[in-house]
Amino acid sequence: MNTTRIEGTVATGFETVRDEFTAFVEETGGQTGSQLAVYHRGHLVVDLWAGEEIGPDTLTGLHSVTKGATSLVMALLHQDDAIELDRPVAEIWPEFGRARKAGITIRDVMTHRSGVIGIPGGFTVEELVDERLVADRLAAEAPLWRPGAAHGYAGFTVGALLNEVVRRITGQTVQELYAERIREPYGLDLFLGLPEPLDHRYREILPWIAAPEQEAAFAAYAPNADGISGIGYNLGARGFTPQTVMTFPNARIVRERGPASAGAVGSARGIAKLYAAAIGEVDDRGPLLKSGTLAEFATVHSTGPNLVTGDGAPFALGFEAKGLIHPFLSARSFGHTGSAGADGIADPLHGIAIGYTRRRAAFAFDAPERGRFAAAVVRAAADLETQES
Amino acid sequence: MNTTRIEGTVATGFETVRDEFTAFVEETGGQTGSQLAVYHRGHLVVDLWAGEEIGPDTLTGLHSVTKGATSLVMALLHQDDAIELDRPVAEIWPEFGRARKAGITIRDVMTHRSGVIGIPGGFTVEELVDERLVADRLAAEAPLWRPGAAHGYAGFTVGALLNEVVRRITGQTVQELYAERIREPYGLDLFLGLPEPLDHRYREILPWIAAPEQEAAFAAYAPNADGISGIGYNLGARGFTPQTVMTFPNARIVRERGPASAGAVGSARGIAKLYAAAIGEVDDRGPLLKSGTLAEFATVHSTGPNLVTGDGAPFALGFEAKGLIHPFLSARSFGHTGSAGADGIADPLHGIAIGYTRRRAAFAFDAPERGRFAAAVVRAAADLETQES
Amino acid sequence: MNTTRIEGTVATGFETVRDEFTAFVEETGGQTGSQLAVYHRGHLVVDLWAGEEIGPDTLTGLHSVTKGATSLVMALLHQDDAIELDRPVAEIWPEFGRARKAGITIRDVMTHRSGVIGIPGGFTVEELVDERLVADRLAAEAPLWRPGAAHGYAGFTVGALLNEVVRRITGQTVQELYAERIREPYGLDLFLGLPEPLDHRYREILPWIAAPEQEAAFAAYAPNADGISGIGYNLGARGFTPQTVMTFPNARIVRERGPASAGAVGSARGIAKLYAAAIGEVDDRGPLLKSGTLAEFATVHSTGPNLVTGDGAPFALGFEAKGLIHPFLSARSFGHTGSAGADGIADPLHGIAIGYTRRRAAFAFDAPERGRFAAAVVRAAADLETQES
Repeated sequence: MNTTRIEGTVATGFETVRDEFTAFVEETGGQTGSQLAVYHRGHLVVDLWAGEEIGPDTLTGLHSVTKGATSLVMALLHQDDAIELDRPVAEIWPEFGRARKAGITIRDVMTHRSGVIGIPGGFTVEELVDERLVADRLAAEAPLWRPGAAHGYAGFTVGALLNEVVRRITGQTVQELYAERIREPYGLDLFLGLPEPLDHRYREILPWIAAPEQEAAFAAYAPNADGISGIGYNLGARGFTPQTVMTFPNARIVRERGPASAGAVGSARGIAKLYAAAIGEVDDRGPLLKSGTLAEFATVHSTGPNLVTGDGAPFALGFEAKGLIHPFLSARSFGHTGSAGADGIADPLHGIAIGYTRRRAAFAFDAPERGRFAAAVVRAAADLETQES
Repeated sequence: MNTTRIEGTVATGFETVRDEFTAFVEETGGQTGSQLAVYHRGHLVVDLWAGEEIGPDTLTGLHSVTKGATSLVMALLHQDDAIELDRPVAEIWPEFGRARKAGITIRDVMTHRSGVIGIPGGFTVEELVDERLVADRLAAEAPLWRPGAAHGYAGFTVGALLNEVVRRITGQTVQELYAERIREPYGLDLFLGLPEPLDHRYREILPWIAAPEQEAAFAAYAPNADGISGIGYNLGARGFTPQTVMTFPNARIVRERGPASAGAVGSARGIAKLYAAAIGEVDDRGPLLKSGTLAEFATVHSTGPNLVTGDGAPFALGFEAKGLIHPFLSARSFGHTGSAGADGIADPLHGIAIGYTRRRAAFAFDAPERGRFAAAVVRAAADLETQES
Repeated sequence: MNTTRIEGTVATGFETVRDEFTAFVEETGGQTGSQLAVYHRGHLVVDLWAGEEIGPDTLTGLHSVTKGATSLVMALLHQDDAIELDRPVAEIWPEFGRARKAGITIRDVMTHRSGVIGIPGGFTVEELVDERLVADRLAAEAPLWRPGAAHGYAGFTVGALLNEVVRRITGQTVQELYAERIREPYGLDLFLGLPEPLDHRYREILPWIAAPEQEAAFAAYAPNADGISGIGYNLGARGFTPQTVMTFPNARIVRERGPASAGAVGSARGIAKLYAAAIGEVDDRGPLLKSGTLAEFATVHSTGPNLVTGDGAPFALGFEAKGLIHPFLSARSFGHTGSAGADGIADPLHGIAIGYTRRRAAFAFDAPERGRFAAAVVRAAADLETQES
């Protein structure tokens, strides 16, 4: 029998995480091409990978894990007093104030409450990498719901809106600020804009494997491209199909530009270290976020039905409210998943930062192993702390 | 076998809508007495009717389809800068400000967020047609929920509140403004106040047909007349039973006055043309609503649990948010159903306006054929646009 | 067979309530140790008790029924113009304004919308009775959700926050004001702080009786002590287990201090008379609350998912919105349950006030007999009013 090798290491006390990873790889025949990395109190304690062409330094598409990096840039700018979260976007970017959007704040945009989520017909891949074009187009749109009265995931557009705000305030892009202030100092393998010389490390996202009846069932639930849900998912004649979503980062232009909504590429190590740096000391550097900033960005903002995705995935400020998604995490946990199956999680109370990637897209954008791995990490860390105390 | 004849015409490309209408009439043995009319890009493309005593010009009771006409009047006044939606009602109508209602805005009332939905014990039919009496009574009530904190359908009273606001601002009633600015210019067969000489065209709403066990099951779920739900439905010793709701427009006084919540009578042609005129050119007249007004009134305002109806029927501004109710419609679709089964829908993106009536009330106020017909219309229009492009 | 005796009296017309009480006692073998008392239009019409060591004057632990007494004190202070509900807490208590809590109003706290619900690790019983210590600790915390954006039950802490506000405004505690203005004038057997000479009337709350598999199933759902739910339930190493919750009032220090969240002890008569006094004449004294105050505090404020309890138990202002919990009650009904099974309900429209206690804690904090008894009371009162009219 052809068994996929589990490679990498775990620190003492985290053996159960390797067991869980191993079990998952065996169940799935190693087809996912997964990396899992965990920092605990600033130390890399889980560093595992498995699957064809997957090494510890392999980079793959992270989809909306990107939003975690973008939100971290926003948090740093807020911490610097450069960005006031409750300021109307239109005060900074007057064109945005058209079509009854004068009152929409930066916080509304970050918490998916603005009602500005896309355009009927959708954006093409080529348009999405041009974030100023996307921002211009969205500035002309009326909100789809009364800003603040509901929330709906602006999966492909929130980054362009924030990038325009950041550019007007700082003269730099989210990508530039991310590189200067986060990626370079920590040497993170997580790129919003992957330099050409590193592109050989990229491995394409592979489309999901599904039985025809599964595909048919999934297709039957495809939202109407002109509806609120379809606009939020960027569907439509010019926009996306599920295949386009999965393979989005496979376009070189996407990797080159790294649009701030969903264009990042990276490794599990990169994601885990990003969150480790956000919440605590890593490599003898202090945490990126002060406790007040951390509390603000980890605070739950949007709960209840999501007008785009339908379910109740709750949001903190830019990040997902991981403590409500995974009840075994502590209250102020935060992070962000990606469509193909990647994930990033920080649990500041327990000093845990998790990164996960998978090269083979998860069917129907659902990768339940993320929860299994996170639960195993939390149990292992808790057992260690019990032994130490 | 006694088969109900399907009468009327459909334009080329809309044959499948007739097929759906025919299938429904056959399934129900023609008992519903239905009219279906559709405008596409300003042209009447579906004009069908079937059932005893039902012709194309037959008028019947429209119940809450009335709110579509009332909301259109509100939209015109807002477009004229006569009505500011976020102005507190009490600034215009000081008596309304009593009992902690000083902050309630016109927008709160239109989106069913005011908490002012009725009175314990309910209003009689005779009272409901006297909208100033209803407005006076409601002005003395405290809201049942904190205004803005929740929403609940004020099915029989919202029109009286808006009418008082309109009267105080313009000196005219909703009925007068509707007749002057909408009904007469377009020659609409949709009346808020049916002139006596036309009353011979009215055919009474017939009570629903249900097996005894269905009636018993329905009765078992009847809300407590003194509860929030019961007050919203105008139940109670002086108020309504389901029978009273169904037969409300059968009272001549209701048809004569046409109260702005639920007192309209009309035909499917009338409803469809109302929405066609709202969103586009009809009869060489420009659209009633400018694109900005349209976007404002089609914006989703109230989602989540409805404290009166229990379910999540979402509201735009005065209209139902049809794009969330029927996912096959485009995001900014709007309209309003009526209790007996009537419906009005506008899909501005696709240039579609639908009117539907049924003379025989739908059991439990549920007429699922409305969704079937709308889906067939949208498919037919989409196929036509694909062929043309 | 050893049958538990049903003792006490019911007025003419309320025999069916005794029947319901009797049926429940028989079904449960009398193990609950229950008292049920009802006032109707100011008269005690139901006064029943059953179970070992249970008499009409027995006092037992009321848990969160306490919040009803605390909310009534808040209502009196609001009625006196001493407390403005929409004033930020930090204007009265500056230390509370730290950590992004400057905008939180008294109303936010009372309606469980503040996001300030506890601390990771929980409070011990000894800490919880020191409400100033609890208030100081909470003043340093950041909210767990954006204030006003969601609601979550602050079961063990809301009283400490309100007590600090009350003390700073009035120089008195909630306990002192409650005793002076409510308990003493009416001679209520409901104590926030039970004097030592009366402590012999206290009977301990007994832990629930559950089969091992029930206990295991319950334990499996225990929330993570560090999560939002666990913090709200005051779980954690220093905090509570379900056993601690149940037996909280068994600690003499709890009864002595009577903390304003959950520290009251009393009888069913005491609870019922409290609500009877709130809404109408009792013992020739006028109602404690004027109609405007009553309407304000009975208004629904928080609906939808509760971030701590998960379910949709809705809140009025400090009280539970009983009209949404029990649809057979009228719209402005209010009250508050307690964890072990106690309950207090007022239905002002029908002049009903209900008190209930049980000495044996209800499994999983769920005591469905409360709804049965309330329904029987409402039916009996309705039948009486029909006969009289």
